[in-house]
Amino acid sequence: MLPLRKNIAEMAGYVPGFQPDGEGWIKLNTNENPYPPSPQVVAAIWEELGDDGGALRKYPDAGSKEARRVAAELYGVDPSWVIMANGSDELLNNLIRAFAAEGEEIAYIHPSYSYYATLAEIQGATVRTFSLSDEGRIDFPERYDGKLFFFTSPNAPLGCAFDNDTIADLARRCSGVLVVDEAYGDFAGESALELVQQFENLVVTRTFSKSYGLAGMRLGLAVARPEVVAALDKIRDHYHLDRLALVAASAALQDQDYLRTTVARICRNRDEMRDKLISCGYQVIPSQANYLFVSPSDGNGKRIYDALYAEKILVRYFSDPRLSHGVRISIGTEEEMAATLKVLATLV
Amino acid sequence: MLPLRKNIAEMAGYVPGFQPDGEGWIKLNTNENPYPPSPQVVAAIWEELGDDGGALRKYPDAGSKEARRVAAELYGVDPSWVIMANGSDELLNNLIRAFAAEGEEIAYIHPSYSYYATLAEIQGATVRTFSLSDEGRIDFPERYDGKLFFFTSPNAPLGCAFDNDTIADLARRCSGVLVVDEAYGDFAGESALELVQQFENLVVTRTFSKSYGLAGMRLGLAVARPEVVAALDKIRDHYHLDRLALVAASAALQDQDYLRTTVARICRNRDEMRDKLISCGYQVIPSQANYLFVSPSDGNGKRIYDALYAEKILVRYFSDPRLSHGVRISIGTEEEMAATLKVLATLV
Repeated sequence: MLPLRKNIAEMAGYVPGFQPDGEGWIKLNTNENPYPPSPQVVAAIWEELGDDGGALRKYPDAGSKEARRVAAELYGVDPSWVIMANGSDELLNNLIRAFAAEGEEIAYIHPSYSYYATLAEIQGATVRTFSLSDEGRIDFPERYDGKLFFFTSPNAPLGCAFDNDTIADLARRCSGVLVVDEAYGDFAGESALELVQQFENLVVTRTFSKSYGLAGMRLGLAVARPEVVAALDKIRDHYHLDRLALVAASAALQDQDYLRTTVARICRNRDEMRDKLISCGYQVIPSQANYLFVSPSDGNGKRIYDALYAEKILVRYFSDPRLSHGVRISIGTEEEMAATLKVLATLV
Repeated sequence: MLPLRKNIAEMAGYVPGFQPDGEGWIKLNTNENPYPPSPQVVAAIWEELGDDGGALRKYPDAGSKEARRVAAELYGVDPSWVIMANGSDELLNNLIRAFAAEGEEIAYIHPSYSYYATLAEIQGATVRTFSLSDEGRIDFPERYDGKLFFFTSPNAPLGCAFDNDTIADLARRCSGVLVVDEAYGDFAGESALELVQQFENLVVTRTFSKSYGLAGMRLGLAVARPEVVAALDKIRDHYHLDRLALVAASAALQDQDYLRTTVARICRNRDEMRDKLISCGYQVIPSQANYLFVSPSDGNGKRIYDALYAEKILVRYFSDPRLSHGVRISIGTEEEMAATLKVLATLV
């Protein structure tokens, strides 16, 4: 009998978004970027790889110094305020390990990213949720004394973002750490990055998986005060990022022109898609992310999911009663949006 | 005041091997492979990357199915017995999380890989060590009831390996999990992989950083029974391996001819180096890894380290009293070994 910890034995494990086999799918279920990453990213990887891959035989820079320097310059902070990560998931995981011991409480907004709950289960931490309405109202107490509060802005899967007055108010109400998960921050107007130096307990996480088109490279970062960064540096695997990921990160951050162009194009596709869906009769929450939460008049999200699936269009349906009235549709290319709209127009 | 966990606030963090800046160093301090990885690895990465890096915009396979299939075929087990990892460090970390709760005990051999202690500190687990003599004798009790026992074979930094009778005996004495860390296993004669199906509590971990020349890609794997693999699958970040690392792993495992050739060359260089060092008057522990633990007659390892450093030859010195009588020298190319020997011959 193996002495597996009880919380691990009993937990289910996180199930990531479905990846279809075979060709011909329009894949709008995991909020990937429909456009390739910056050509500078590809060039940087080719250069690091070289003809014979000789660089790969040596360990990467354990401190991610160059990528941190570039990110710090971009966000206007000292490099000691930045940590790079193997996807922002790694940061969420290590934030729990840094602040919440077994039996201690963390919280998050419901609905949002269900992986927070999985990470708490792994740690043996307890979980509390605060609810968010479709209109963006949050049911949050005057004072929250849990160790960590994960606040997803823009919210996934609804798409609404929160202004910095709201974030500042939440930071004041938390005695523990407020983590603003800005996985979709590049698609939104405001960013809590502007508040990090004002609030000791504020951490902002970002991912390269959405706006930078690098879901396949596993890159994320956090901006927080140096004490928090130092704690996360102790917890992470020392060589958590491979050499190709490191050069990809720096190159992506340095090509802000490409980021702006790609993001603007996705936002334009998103806003046009929303207008057209509303014209068809759907309810669509205003989104500041690269997806739309779309509800038909009968409130049957599963019906929409199934009908799109039959046409090889994959979107995300959540059986959670809070979300089952609609589906989340990632913003694809212009052609993918047109094809999806054509099917959706018959389903209202 | 941030509510940092006490164990995290008080711990020091692991310090990986020094990476020198600038050119002209002979770098023999982190047991990297002196030869580049298989050309098939480079080809696989180029193919996945493509002209525009388009594949990188999509998430990788969260289940590492292809790499597991290839590894399982190589080791003659079902894929359910294999897990891939972001370096074997990720596995060591997640094994502790799976089996040792805060306050519970893990153990390891001293001397061996000091990162085990760091990982235990992060988890808040307690640590016990069992000593290993230069002659390879282990001071181990009849029965060990800690949750995990990390056993490094071949041992780092001494280089001695343990036969499967010894491993089997240890597995029987452990009521918890015996993790045989075979980071250097490809350089050794026997492997505990042959025992995994016999002992419920046996886990074998491997890395691609040494024999496969892929320290820069962060790849490792474990072979263990499916219950253990399933537990580790729950704990790991779901997208822990990027797309380029995944194709690199499969390609590396599939080119066993290249592995055998490279490993044979390193072992030949190692054995020749050992003979020559003994002829010079050094004590050199017989090694089944890609390094040698070398002691001068005055037992002053620091003197050797400093003298080599002055010639831009970097080896590893450990201030630990158990190890300060020598230095660990990674096996480099024929030219690097000749240059190192030339300096060492003047230092006996």
